Amino acid sequence: MRALEFGTGIWAFGQFVDRYAGDGYGPPRGTREMIEMAARVTDLSCLDINVPFATEGMTASEVRTLLDDNGLTCRATTPHIYMREYAKGSFTNPDGDLRMRTQRRVEEAIEAAQILGAGYVKFWPGQDGYDFPGQVDHQQMWDNTVNGIREVCERHPDVQFAIEYKPKEPRVRMTLANAPKTLLAIEDTGVANLGIVMDFGHSLMAGESPTESLLMIHRRGKLVSAELNDNWRDWDDDLPVASVHLFETMEYLIALRDIGWSDPVLLDQFPFREDPVAALHRSIETIQMLDEACGRIDRVELADAQTRQDALAVQRLYWNALLGTERFRD
Amino acid sequence: MRALEFGTGIWAFGQFVDRYAGDGYGPPRGTREMIEMAARVTDLSCLDINVPFATEGMTASEVRTLLDDNGLTCRATTPHIYMREYAKGSFTNPDGDLRMRTQRRVEEAIEAAQILGAGYVKFWPGQDGYDFPGQVDHQQMWDNTVNGIREVCERHPDVQFAIEYKPKEPRVRMTLANAPKTLLAIEDTGVANLGIVMDFGHSLMAGESPTESLLMIHRRGKLVSAELNDNWRDWDDDLPVASVHLFETMEYLIALRDIGWSDPVLLDQFPFREDPVAALHRSIETIQMLDEACGRIDRVELADAQTRQDALAVQRLYWNALLGTERFRD
Amino acid sequence: MRALEFGTGIWAFGQFVDRYAGDGYGPPRGTREMIEMAARVTDLSCLDINVPFATEGMTASEVRTLLDDNGLTCRATTPHIYMREYAKGSFTNPDGDLRMRTQRRVEEAIEAAQILGAGYVKFWPGQDGYDFPGQVDHQQMWDNTVNGIREVCERHPDVQFAIEYKPKEPRVRMTLANAPKTLLAIEDTGVANLGIVMDFGHSLMAGESPTESLLMIHRRGKLVSAELNDNWRDWDDDLPVASVHLFETMEYLIALRDIGWSDPVLLDQFPFREDPVAALHRSIETIQMLDEACGRIDRVELADAQTRQDALAVQRLYWNALLGTERFRD
Amino acid sequence: MRALEFGTGIWAFGQFVDRYAGDGYGPPRGTREMIEMAARVTDLSCLDINVPFATEGMTASEVRTLLDDNGLTCRATTPHIYMREYAKGSFTNPDGDLRMRTQRRVEEAIEAAQILGAGYVKFWPGQDGYDFPGQVDHQQMWDNTVNGIREVCERHPDVQFAIEYKPKEPRVRMTLANAPKTLLAIEDTGVANLGIVMDFGHSLMAGESPTESLLMIHRRGKLVSAELNDNWRDWDDDLPVASVHLFETMEYLIALRDIGWSDPVLLDQFPFREDPVAALHRSIETIQMLDEACGRIDRVELADAQTRQDALAVQRLYWNALLGTERFRD
Repeated sequence: MRALEFGTGIWAFGQFVDRYAGDGYGPPRGTREMIEMAARVTDLSCLDINVPFATEGMTASEVRTLLDDNGLTCRATTPHIYMREYAKGSFTNPDGDLRMRTQRRVEEAIEAAQILGAGYVKFWPGQDGYDFPGQVDHQQMWDNTVNGIREVCERHPDVQFAIEYKPKEPRVRMTLANAPKTLLAIEDTGVANLGIVMDFGHSLMAGESPTESLLMIHRRGKLVSAELNDNWRDWDDDLPVASVHLFETMEYLIALRDIGWSDPVLLDQFPFREDPVAALHRSIETIQMLDEACGRIDRVELADAQTRQDALAVQRLYWNALLGTERFRD
Repeated sequence: MRALEFGTGIWAFGQFVDRYAGDGYGPPRGTREMIEMAARVTDLSCLDINVPFATEGMTASEVRTLLDDNGLTCRATTPHIYMREYAKGSFTNPDGDLRMRTQRRVEEAIEAAQILGAGYVKFWPGQDGYDFPGQVDHQQMWDNTVNGIREVCERHPDVQFAIEYKPKEPRVRMTLANAPKTLLAIEDTGVANLGIVMDFGHSLMAGESPTESLLMIHRRGKLVSAELNDNWRDWDDDLPVASVHLFETMEYLIALRDIGWSDPVLLDQFPFREDPVAALHRSIETIQMLDEACGRIDRVELADAQTRQDALAVQRLYWNALLGTERFRD
Repeated sequence: MRALEFGTGIWAFGQFVDRYAGDGYGPPRGTREMIEMAARVTDLSCLDINVPFATEGMTASEVRTLLDDNGLTCRATTPHIYMREYAKGSFTNPDGDLRMRTQRRVEEAIEAAQILGAGYVKFWPGQDGYDFPGQVDHQQMWDNTVNGIREVCERHPDVQFAIEYKPKEPRVRMTLANAPKTLLAIEDTGVANLGIVMDFGHSLMAGESPTESLLMIHRRGKLVSAELNDNWRDWDDDLPVASVHLFETMEYLIALRDIGWSDPVLLDQFPFREDPVAALHRSIETIQMLDEACGRIDRVELADAQTRQDALAVQRLYWNALLGTERFRD
Repeated sequence: MRALEFGTGIWAFGQFVDRYAGDGYGPPRGTREMIEMAARVTDLSCLDINVPFATEGMTASEVRTLLDDNGLTCRATTPHIYMREYAKGSFTNPDGDLRMRTQRRVEEAIEAAQILGAGYVKFWPGQDGYDFPGQVDHQQMWDNTVNGIREVCERHPDVQFAIEYKPKEPRVRMTLANAPKTLLAIEDTGVANLGIVMDFGHSLMAGESPTESLLMIHRRGKLVSAELNDNWRDWDDDLPVASVHLFETMEYLIALRDIGWSDPVLLDQFPFREDPVAALHRSIETIQMLDEACGRIDRVELADAQTRQDALAVQRLYWNALLGTERFRD
């Protein structure tokens, strides 16, 4: 198997804010600076880039040049459809004008994707949902979600689109909350150029087994991107890979091998209090170390143990592979 | 709208055990006694009955007579496919012999359903899943789930089957965990006589909006039964209706009105420390009270508020309907 | 019993940001505008005010005049010790210089409190904790927390201080996470002028019974303020009162009656997508309505039911009080 | 540092039931058989034993002989105060007669402890709490808890007692829910011979950092026993050590080294679907492997990284220690 490739959301290098530290974590950074920082992360080769770009007025061609100059490529573009004006939703906004503006903003991201040579355009409708019990007409929300996304996809049959699901934040409850629900939405759109960005941490937060979801999405032909990170299960903490969950990360890497994943693995981290270059590199070296360990597992033995649901045998294989010894025995 | 009808799982009248009180909560009760208790719950008209029956050796005809004598009907039968021998699963058990035994036990429940005049046979594969990260081959589990259930459904094209989903317990993680995943499994079976038993409490536990799931299942033509109860979200506490969540229960009752639900509403409660007759009656009178309140809501105003995502207006309508006054104003 | 008095954190009228909508929800507002909005909330009489003030350069005397002019008082001041420079903590910041700056910022809030006639100065050390397993020396964190707070309290023996606890956000895990842990910290400081701001929503999030915590804090003589709001248990959603939890809110209001609470009840809401004046007024009218209902409960009957742990009887009393009828019977 | 010693609750070898598999997981086993199985677990030296014993009529002297014959000792006795008759509580049962019966049952466990040479008698009041919002008078519950436990402790000033806390199960909400609350209860008893059994899994479930709680309990001189296992955070799954959480387990083992823990580490597992001998041995060998790794960490470097809150440096030290190489670098 060839070496894994790595990418990251460009936001990892931006300034973060939250509702308390409204004045931001770390210094503000423009697009150029973010790209230059990304180039300093060993083994990082590509970016998911928000549109509009961080630096106002910068064109896609200028960004393309910056990427080229720094030896990076653009893996995806992500339209900002979850900021101020979209507080009540993008595709499902109650205001028809804003639903139209969502379409226009998505168009900008599509144009940028074409110039930047991106593999897909990502939808992350983080404001589409509700906050209170009873607040919305769920059927209407679903229809607006499906219709709004179908519309874009049909307008650009040659562009690959992908939805990133998540159960909450910023909206208290998001409509596209988990893997199977998103698969149903995609089915309802009836389009062929729409898939899923599968984020490990969002999946944990949704109470899923990330590996099971990855395989389910893959089996239905909808796996467009796989993203890694970690959290404490109760929130999208966006920590470096395997900061909390060891075996679940190994299980996921084994599944990536099984499906022959050859596209980049993306990192979705928010290093609020760490140096972004170091925090991203930590994830990459951890994945490389764990992936090597996974390569040492006897897959016939593993398949046999899983078929018997023999958890202790699976653990023995995982631990020994990690340690590179036969420390654990039957 | 005509009055709601009510049913309950017969287990509400049985003796409960758990892993600590292995000697049980309350006295042991046989089938006859459980049916007689059910008959004492005002406005309760039907039962979901486990097969094999609680009283060993009792026949379905004898149970039918007991039901008739007590003015009750059988709404569903539920095969015990989650007890001792099924500890590692029913349809997905690693042991082929047990997968076959699952099929046979389901057959018993189908036969009983026919004699008892039940509307559907329920599958609740509570042991089908895993306990440890990495323990199972998720693809294999999914295939066994889908194939095992398809097999039964195809063998009995004239019987209505329904899956009750739940995220965990007794298995640490259950395969048929939430509404959309179960819809995908049903889709994968390709059969027409398989739907869903939608349990409010399981849905809360799965992080869903129960109302959204109810409507999604209904829209896909898969709603076989609707069950109410309540919990603290983190576990299947099976408490009386609205013990914790008021507005979400009202929202659910409004949705039942909207889809013209005329089948019974089932209660799934485990009154560990309460008198079962009183605990079930409490749920029924609470539903009746809340449903009357829901009937007082101006549905044009509600639709308008929801379309605007105006949560405060929705609350005003809910509170006023509940109180039967115009206490809350714009 | 005399009517309840109400206050709110002034931030409810500010512009919110989060890590996605970095450009903010709603328009930015200065101190004057926020106070004028507060004055428009019927039955709202006082504010918890952040220091430094929202409007740069405004003095405490100017704020005092604004409050007077608008018929409001200052209930508390809260130093901003959780913004940018405090990203790694205030009292527990690894940098000694920042721990000193924390002390100075607290001094500003104390001075403002004196000019504004505030009842207490609140500490909300939302950045004091950790993000990763293993990241900190817990003993060191505890000592810095206790010593830093003791220092302030000893320096101002005549000022009342109060800690507001919360389990997470913005820090992934906060040190002063729940009621009993905060009581132990207060005990360890050994000072007499330090208590607790008990926030209903933070308590839900900490897995507590808010009422039990309120009573425990009160019994130890540490209840300085009681705050109401609501959430979905998994995050500090800061919704209007009883948006999700009815009986737990009623239980809390009964406890406030029992302890003879005569200070204002504070609201801690973040109306991201609602009009703040309406969202706060909704909470006040809901509390007034529920508190009236609680006043209708026969307290001898309630005490008797609770002593027997008779949950169904408690529910009957709650429902009947809410509806103002004897709809539910034994 | 000398080798760690290991013990387990004897229940790990018993037959489990739950509310679905009421007919049990695995075969029923008597006390003799359970002790003989325990003796087959390599490096296991002691047991926490429930009183009354599993085999009815067996005396403490007979159990002592069995232990001696099998090379085991008794670490603790745990009275069954959470079975059928205690469904509404032990020390807090509404029925005064049952509160007295609790005292008598505790006496049996004390007598057994003396004959068996146990180090402490454990209270696990798993039924003491409530199920519904509003159900109990929290003050009364607290007083009954504190008074009931104080009474026993005062009657036996020479016996060491210890409370094992847990947030829920079997009671929907337990009174002695977390570490600081239990410390406050102990403080309120005013007795010197009462401490805490600190269970890693219960602490995860309570939203705590197990290491922080261990150290807090130790610092207050109340650490009587330390128990390890693992779970998925949302329930007391009682899985083998480090099945889910790697770094948190390492952090805990480092803390045990820091406090010079020389008493046995106890295992609290429920191997529903595994061979108990193998499942317990897995935990022991995992602890031994991880503890060796912890021994390789440069403690000056670790302390320095923690003081700076440098999470990436802590991770580097943990990973390198685990792998036994310098794979991760600055």
